[in-house]
Amino acid sequence: MAEPRTVLIVSDHTGLTAESIARALLTHFPQQSLKYLRRPFTADVVAAQSVAREVIALAARGERPIVFTTVTNAEVMRELQAAPAAVFDLLGPGLDALEQEFATPAVRQVGGHHDMHDPQDYLNRMDALDFALATDDGLGDRQYGLADVILVGVSRAGKTPTSLFLALQHGVRASNYPLAEDDFERGSLPIPLEAHRAKLHGLTIDPRRLHAIRTQRKPGSRYASIEQCEFEVRRAEKLFQRAGLPVRDTTSASVEEIAAGILNTQRKG
Amino acid sequence: MAEPRTVLIVSDHTGLTAESIARALLTHFPQQSLKYLRRPFTADVVAAQSVAREVIALAARGERPIVFTTVTNAEVMRELQAAPAAVFDLLGPGLDALEQEFATPAVRQVGGHHDMHDPQDYLNRMDALDFALATDDGLGDRQYGLADVILVGVSRAGKTPTSLFLALQHGVRASNYPLAEDDFERGSLPIPLEAHRAKLHGLTIDPRRLHAIRTQRKPGSRYASIEQCEFEVRRAEKLFQRAGLPVRDTTSASVEEIAAGILNTQRKG
Repeated sequence: MAEPRTVLIVSDHTGLTAESIARALLTHFPQQSLKYLRRPFTADVVAAQSVAREVIALAARGERPIVFTTVTNAEVMRELQAAPAAVFDLLGPGLDALEQEFATPAVRQVGGHHDMHDPQDYLNRMDALDFALATDDGLGDRQYGLADVILVGVSRAGKTPTSLFLALQHGVRASNYPLAEDDFERGSLPIPLEAHRAKLHGLTIDPRRLHAIRTQRKPGSRYASIEQCEFEVRRAEKLFQRAGLPVRDTTSASVEEIAAGILNTQRKG
Repeated sequence: MAEPRTVLIVSDHTGLTAESIARALLTHFPQQSLKYLRRPFTADVVAAQSVAREVIALAARGERPIVFTTVTNAEVMRELQAAPAAVFDLLGPGLDALEQEFATPAVRQVGGHHDMHDPQDYLNRMDALDFALATDDGLGDRQYGLADVILVGVSRAGKTPTSLFLALQHGVRASNYPLAEDDFERGSLPIPLEAHRAKLHGLTIDPRRLHAIRTQRKPGSRYASIEQCEFEVRRAEKLFQRAGLPVRDTTSASVEEIAAGILNTQRKG
């Protein structure tokens, strides 16, 4: 077996964009064995030379590393491009093309869009996060009137991670409503939700997956039993259907996918 | 004043990568007035035609929209490229170059790296999130032994958002320790932290900013007073210094920046 090939993610800032692009590209080559090294805050020539030395050391062992970089400073880029690696300049060609399109030069400053260059946008995200935490499961007053989105589902169906992701990534205020036995007895939408239909999104999950998740939390409990999980999921799905809610299955969907789906439904709604 | 120009973010999946690249590029053109539309899950020709119709409608009003897209299906891309817009194919050139580098064709399947193609990686992130929530402020047993990182700071210095981001984005288990009056009286590291020095990161903040944040929460309280904020921050910084902890100022840093900085320090440490 060959050693995994080294992928260096080199950014002048957090590296989140660079890593996102690198992974988006490399996911199309699933047969490659790769090892990731993150080199954020590579913002000057000295830092770039340090990365170049790492590349040289790897190359000395017979490897040809891959460098994905979003740096925009020309001198820093030159240092990277001089290193014995396959270097992918992820933003350069796009910036050149946009300069043409806008007929104006790119600023090419260090730093990126993950700083607070839009403070209002950032404050919205932090407010949304506070909101999600304050209105999470079982904390009484959920302030549904202030929510952008209300997630409805049984315990451990994915409401909390989705709310937190909606807040942190999208600045969306998500509250949630945990369905419990008395809601199933009623057979229609819980009363606190009735006034907020347009914001409601049902989350469902495969009962076996729910059983596994709950068992990790409370092994051997009635709460975690497969019978209870099947009962709750069946009733929840019936309720969603009767109320005409959009529903997402979280069994094999990531929070990124669930959140994007909810926002897309909301937009079309 | 001209109308803002429309930027369409078109993805066959969540659109997170496409939006990340688009914003990374456009942040270098701060003088442009732009309006973003997200079009995730544009995975087939029908969906692409619907986006193309939106472009045509905008063009009919005299606008030349900008399309940033990460779709990799050739037919879907053709539909987008036929629309009257400046179309930026964000992954195509990189995929072509990687095909050369790896001497193997790209899979070019729909979907991206934000699904659960690496279930273990995803489960780690969800476990880290559960951990961060369970060990957050004031919940007693903080299980510092199981943490990857422990954030230390006064109330509302940014510990909770940073922990949640470290978990959701990086799969890192972050716990935290809120500094309080009796810790300042001791003048050295709180006892529960002594065994975990290598994991500790101090968070500090401008006292005026802290005052503003706390005032939003508890207006007029001693807790929110500028005197109390100044006192706590001064003492916390002294404690960090004496204990030799790496310190980050959260006053004007985003959670993305704080998290990237912590992980970078951790790596070098």
